[in-house]
Amino acid sequence: MRTAVVIGTGLIGTSAALALTARGVTVHLVDHDPAVVHTAAARGAGTEEAPEGPVDLAIVAVPPAYVAGTLAEAMRGGVARGYLDVASVKGGPKRELEAMGLDLTSYIGTHPMSGKERSGPLAATADLFEGRPWVLTPARDTDTEVLNLALELVALCRAVPVVMDADAHDRAVALVSHTPQLVSSMVAARLADADETAVRLCGQGIRDVTRIAASDPRMWVEILSANPGPVADVLAGVASDLEETVQALRSLQSADEDKRRDGASGVEDVLRRGNAGRARVPGKHGGGPTAYETVAVLISDQPGELARIFADAGRAGVNVEDVRIEHATGQQAGLVQLMVVPAAAPALATALRERGWALRE
Amino acid sequence: MRTAVVIGTGLIGTSAALALTARGVTVHLVDHDPAVVHTAAARGAGTEEAPEGPVDLAIVAVPPAYVAGTLAEAMRGGVARGYLDVASVKGGPKRELEAMGLDLTSYIGTHPMSGKERSGPLAATADLFEGRPWVLTPARDTDTEVLNLALELVALCRAVPVVMDADAHDRAVALVSHTPQLVSSMVAARLADADETAVRLCGQGIRDVTRIAASDPRMWVEILSANPGPVADVLAGVASDLEETVQALRSLQSADEDKRRDGASGVEDVLRRGNAGRARVPGKHGGGPTAYETVAVLISDQPGELARIFADAGRAGVNVEDVRIEHATGQQAGLVQLMVVPAAAPALATALRERGWALRE
Repeated sequence: MRTAVVIGTGLIGTSAALALTARGVTVHLVDHDPAVVHTAAARGAGTEEAPEGPVDLAIVAVPPAYVAGTLAEAMRGGVARGYLDVASVKGGPKRELEAMGLDLTSYIGTHPMSGKERSGPLAATADLFEGRPWVLTPARDTDTEVLNLALELVALCRAVPVVMDADAHDRAVALVSHTPQLVSSMVAARLADADETAVRLCGQGIRDVTRIAASDPRMWVEILSANPGPVADVLAGVASDLEETVQALRSLQSADEDKRRDGASGVEDVLRRGNAGRARVPGKHGGGPTAYETVAVLISDQPGELARIFADAGRAGVNVEDVRIEHATGQQAGLVQLMVVPAAAPALATALRERGWALRE
Repeated sequence: MRTAVVIGTGLIGTSAALALTARGVTVHLVDHDPAVVHTAAARGAGTEEAPEGPVDLAIVAVPPAYVAGTLAEAMRGGVARGYLDVASVKGGPKRELEAMGLDLTSYIGTHPMSGKERSGPLAATADLFEGRPWVLTPARDTDTEVLNLALELVALCRAVPVVMDADAHDRAVALVSHTPQLVSSMVAARLADADETAVRLCGQGIRDVTRIAASDPRMWVEILSANPGPVADVLAGVASDLEETVQALRSLQSADEDKRRDGASGVEDVLRRGNAGRARVPGKHGGGPTAYETVAVLISDQPGELARIFADAGRAGVNVEDVRIEHATGQQAGLVQLMVVPAAAPALATALRERGWALRE
């Protein structure tokens, strides 16, 4: 790939343009907003000048609702040899394009699984996609050359290609991204009118479950509006579990011992299925479930304390895989939980104790 | 307080005994299992010998189902001046004791909001309760002297006392602890039979939402069995939100534009209420919502990298409030997100860049 056009220079489009430019591809930038495309060009993402002839690849990075129209216009103009979009849903745009009667051999739908809280070309970075899955959804009639152009883009952005059917992709993101978002919001919503005393009892569990409930509602309405069917299907499964669990809890209130036993086994069932599902969530290295051991260290809330802990862990030759910092309620002291591979935990605990740290446990 | 009896030397009982012993209180240990009480004594939690006369405080730390019976026996034996339990539910045991016709002026129900994955006296530590809320549920006829003994215990354990009504406590833990557990399990349960390709797309959002789905089902069946009514009530509220959201998503699939608009506003409503609830979750210092800014640093996966980052942050005089480490999928490189008070973020970013770190954003 030597030349590309990026249509839509927001966060994703500009990030891809920055990555391609950095690797020597000539990138032409297009956006319906001249200020936005100007910002992207000023950041070094490419040129605002139009290409002299067809480029190798056109990357359409506009919101889901505009994908089909933008692609159709580019294809009719013969802008490129190959075309792809990067929208977060894949089934809808594909069907829209088919309905337009376009020749889709030169098109492939894709979805890089990257993002951040901020949007726009100023938030873009060349490394946004590094190490992240980038889904490709080739159709039966997609040209191999176009698939290879997409694979080259993914490689230049240092992402990890994952090939999926368009509708399977939409069901997958409904499951692993859209449903967790809505359920997190629903748990958090219970707190909106709760007593202040109850809210004071919140611990790390609810803090984790509701973290993404802080997300931008308008962005999520756009995402969910483009994938309502698959999300409703997954949520209906959650609703059925929920109904059974409420019934099981009501049985646990019964005076009848058999009913109480049924209730307990109903509750246990959903907890066990939760164990099984959680065990499949890939760890941070993408390989199987995370199974780290935790070494918990008490610290004061001073700059430098964390540095000393990590320096001491480094001296012990231990690689800390994850960290959780938990401050005590209303006090200026806290707990640092260092997660390490189980084999390294005893050595880390010994090394930290020797260097004067107070461990919990 | 000079003398105490701890009945039930598991994680909570032994931890309280260790804290009291460390602060000079003479603690007598009792458990129905001689091996368990022997282990607790060997850890320095107190003596296995029976007290010569009534002690100041009896701490009953047995599972919820045994609280009332154990307390009744201790009270009838005149073991102490004051009695308390530490079970995770408060309404049920209180009603059981009332039904037994005991004089409850010398009793107060309490619940320390501490715990860990492991149980038993070997997992106990004197600092288990430090900085954590410890709920006290005095009744109208609780002696002030007994309330003060409980407050002294909380102070000696360096916990933070929170006074609540027993039933309000049970509703609060249903809301902030028991419901999040079940909902996390239900989201995770959707993954149990999902396609491997879909599971590969899991990101940090679902990872956080399902973290506690890894909890021990048997322990949670015990907890939920002791508090089924309040949990069912909160879950019913979630179920109603869920049903409305499924309807809203179905409306978003409609060909009718008005229906789609209604659907979008239904989805937006639950997301906004989620924002409002999440904003109330106390930050790690226990004071209002967390509002940190994130500085994201790219690192290689070598021991010592984190130490260098934290050392550089410390040199810049910046106190890191929280950390999240995100490894790239299938690669040996990752991203460290440093959370700091907003005022400190620019200085930290500058300092890290000057010291050669690659920042994202």
